Amino acid sequence: MHTRTGPRINQIIITPIAIVDPPLLNAAGLHAPYALRTIVEIITDDNISGISEIPGTAAIDASLNESRELLIGRDVFQLNEIRQVLINRFGTESAAQRGEAPWDQRKLVHIFSAIEVACLDIIGKVTGRPVVDLLGGKMRDRVPFSAYLFYKYEGAGGPLAFGTDPAAQGWAAARQASALNPSEIVAQAKAMCAEFGFQSIKLKGGVFEPQQEVDAMFALYEAFGPDVPLRVDPNALWTVETAIKHGRQMEPILEYLEDPVRGQKNMAEVRKAVKTPLATNMCTTSFDDIPGSIALGSEDIILSDHHFWGGLRASMTLSGICETFGRGLSMHSNSHLGISLAAMVHLGAALPQVPYALDTHYPWQSDEIITAGRFTFEEGAVLVPQEPGLGVELDREALARLHQNYLTCGLTKRDDEIEMQKVQPGWKFQSVRW
Amino acid sequence: MHTRTGPRINQIIITPIAIVDPPLLNAAGLHAPYALRTIVEIITDDNISGISEIPGTAAIDASLNESRELLIGRDVFQLNEIRQVLINRFGTESAAQRGEAPWDQRKLVHIFSAIEVACLDIIGKVTGRPVVDLLGGKMRDRVPFSAYLFYKYEGAGGPLAFGTDPAAQGWAAARQASALNPSEIVAQAKAMCAEFGFQSIKLKGGVFEPQQEVDAMFALYEAFGPDVPLRVDPNALWTVETAIKHGRQMEPILEYLEDPVRGQKNMAEVRKAVKTPLATNMCTTSFDDIPGSIALGSEDIILSDHHFWGGLRASMTLSGICETFGRGLSMHSNSHLGISLAAMVHLGAALPQVPYALDTHYPWQSDEIITAGRFTFEEGAVLVPQEPGLGVELDREALARLHQNYLTCGLTKRDDEIEMQKVQPGWKFQSVRW
Repeated sequence: MHTRTGPRINQIIITPIAIVDPPLLNAAGLHAPYALRTIVEIITDDNISGISEIPGTAAIDASLNESRELLIGRDVFQLNEIRQVLINRFGTESAAQRGEAPWDQRKLVHIFSAIEVACLDIIGKVTGRPVVDLLGGKMRDRVPFSAYLFYKYEGAGGPLAFGTDPAAQGWAAARQASALNPSEIVAQAKAMCAEFGFQSIKLKGGVFEPQQEVDAMFALYEAFGPDVPLRVDPNALWTVETAIKHGRQMEPILEYLEDPVRGQKNMAEVRKAVKTPLATNMCTTSFDDIPGSIALGSEDIILSDHHFWGGLRASMTLSGICETFGRGLSMHSNSHLGISLAAMVHLGAALPQVPYALDTHYPWQSDEIITAGRFTFEEGAVLVPQEPGLGVELDREALARLHQNYLTCGLTKRDDEIEMQKVQPGWKFQSVRW
Repeated sequence: MHTRTGPRINQIIITPIAIVDPPLLNAAGLHAPYALRTIVEIITDDNISGISEIPGTAAIDASLNESRELLIGRDVFQLNEIRQVLINRFGTESAAQRGEAPWDQRKLVHIFSAIEVACLDIIGKVTGRPVVDLLGGKMRDRVPFSAYLFYKYEGAGGPLAFGTDPAAQGWAAARQASALNPSEIVAQAKAMCAEFGFQSIKLKGGVFEPQQEVDAMFALYEAFGPDVPLRVDPNALWTVETAIKHGRQMEPILEYLEDPVRGQKNMAEVRKAVKTPLATNMCTTSFDDIPGSIALGSEDIILSDHHFWGGLRASMTLSGICETFGRGLSMHSNSHLGISLAAMVHLGAALPQVPYALDTHYPWQSDEIITAGRFTFEEGAVLVPQEPGLGVELDREALARLHQNYLTCGLTKRDDEIEMQKVQPGWKFQSVRW
């Protein structure tokens, strides 16, 4: 028996796309009518294709392009070496380079995530195993997600759909409807849970002054009762005083409070004062942040994101760290399509435990670029794909169409502040607001 | 393309063996004429064989036997689930269950290591890849090891070889010769380094009163010069005061000082007082110990051992933890044969860095149970096997012979105290001696 060489990377195709995204409000402003994603396809010398999806910015696309020459000819199994080659080229990044926005702006982690997931897709196809089996195998058949509520303006995003379809009903109507107060948030939650079967609920906060968002949480509690875990995420916009005040107020009704304040020191202060567990995807966002997190005790739950933590295997390492230090682990998301969702589901299936249903923006998207069409949710959970690799295949017609969207929409990076200023002239992002 | 099911575990063959081991001295006493190992062979329903080797005790063999019924029929890729099944059956273990001896006495980690390595061997064979590629791929072609010196009595172990062969020369002679003082230790080091090309040297201490062992280290420094990194391991037998005194004395000549004292608190105290990095395989020995290690700052380098940390993938997680917290990682060993060495080499090849040459007892063993015969070292390093799986195959004739050794030697567990008492009646193990 001889070791096979390869499969080796022969082509890397990088396609930026723009997907319709509703006018969702958040701490950084307003979602544009399109969210940008980048689709990476790696084709091996024996013509096996692997795919991945990451948040899209022109800067990261450019770095991905640059990395191409470093990667062509490499064996897709040599992920440790590929990571080192990318570190050598792009350097490691400091926590500061993450930026203050709710999303992560670092290059290396995104690029390696894109390459690693596509390589794992290929390895899965070559070995005839789903990606979850390359992470040690499946601990569950279904991965649970949480409803992800947003304050939003009326409309469903995109060039024409930026208004309300009067014929829409159920989730289709709720997805278009405005949600600017507690009762509209409850209506959104009811429609989303009815459609997807979610069994826990998160509200993206940091939009209105804190008491209104607290009121929305109590309205949700009133509407759904004590058996539906609730979370709210002010995206680090609150002061320590505000967080302690409203954190205590919500103690009886919250499963966890996500990033109430900015920075590990502030988080640790809030954590000492409030009984509700704290979760983060903004104060502990990379392996470099872990020692500070442990020393300060800044959170109970890390919301990982394989796009930001450098891939699926690194996320498994993060899971090991969380297990070792008694931290919970769950998952963060940004607007995304089914390739990212598939990767999240494989990872979610391999984790030793999933005590908190994962985040996903998926219900807010209407586009898809996988041939099987959009993923379905059953009781809020997604069935782990059983086919080799990620178990999803690229819909090339959709890819071309969504790339055309990208070219025509004119966006090159996410900038929720500019979008917000179109609606509220002079609006400014503040890293701490209340 | 459909996902293949299996390969599934069809048979688990557990064979205790006894291998000739020289009368090596250490903190716990004296090596018996035989060291016990257990060889595990897993055979799948499609007749693929995977093998592994762990330290042998009748108690762990019995647990492995018990675990058989839980594992038959399982897919070898489902390592996460297999681990959980074993946790459910055997429970997790406390640090106390490790015991005070230099070796680890916990069941779960050994059992899972045995099963995981054999499954990875099978996965490698099925996918046509060396085990290192299942750990993210090869960062180096050769894995460096350190010379591992022992104080010893005359003889080479085994029933007949427990004396000196007057015709032996070079390493064969040195392996038989006594080494009970600094000059004999230097002679041992010269013979071992000449034979294997090692470029760093470790002395197992904790045998004589500290100043003699310190003298041996200075004699090695004198003989080998400043370019050969030196380490000494008193196996936690020193008091904090002794460790600080002799640690400072050896500051100019040591690469690291291994387990000078017992327990994280004492290690942390020594670490504050001595400039030489501290290494451990006795104070931080499991994931449960990591939070204490970080909080106290008990060591600079963790000496992992895949047999004690629960397998190769867990060791990769440990590597990620060490990288995250700025700790070094190297590798511990006990008396072992080529299946363990192959696993150690695959792991060593996948680690991001190997700043410290790994430990191995391998030169002290003369037996082998792999068909290719004994591994060779070049400049102290072992070439990473390139064949699928571990890259070593079971020599069934040797296995039968070494199993017969086991049956006739009458040993059922390692007990260096009893062996020592045969030579020094009334000798007692002390957890802290000087």
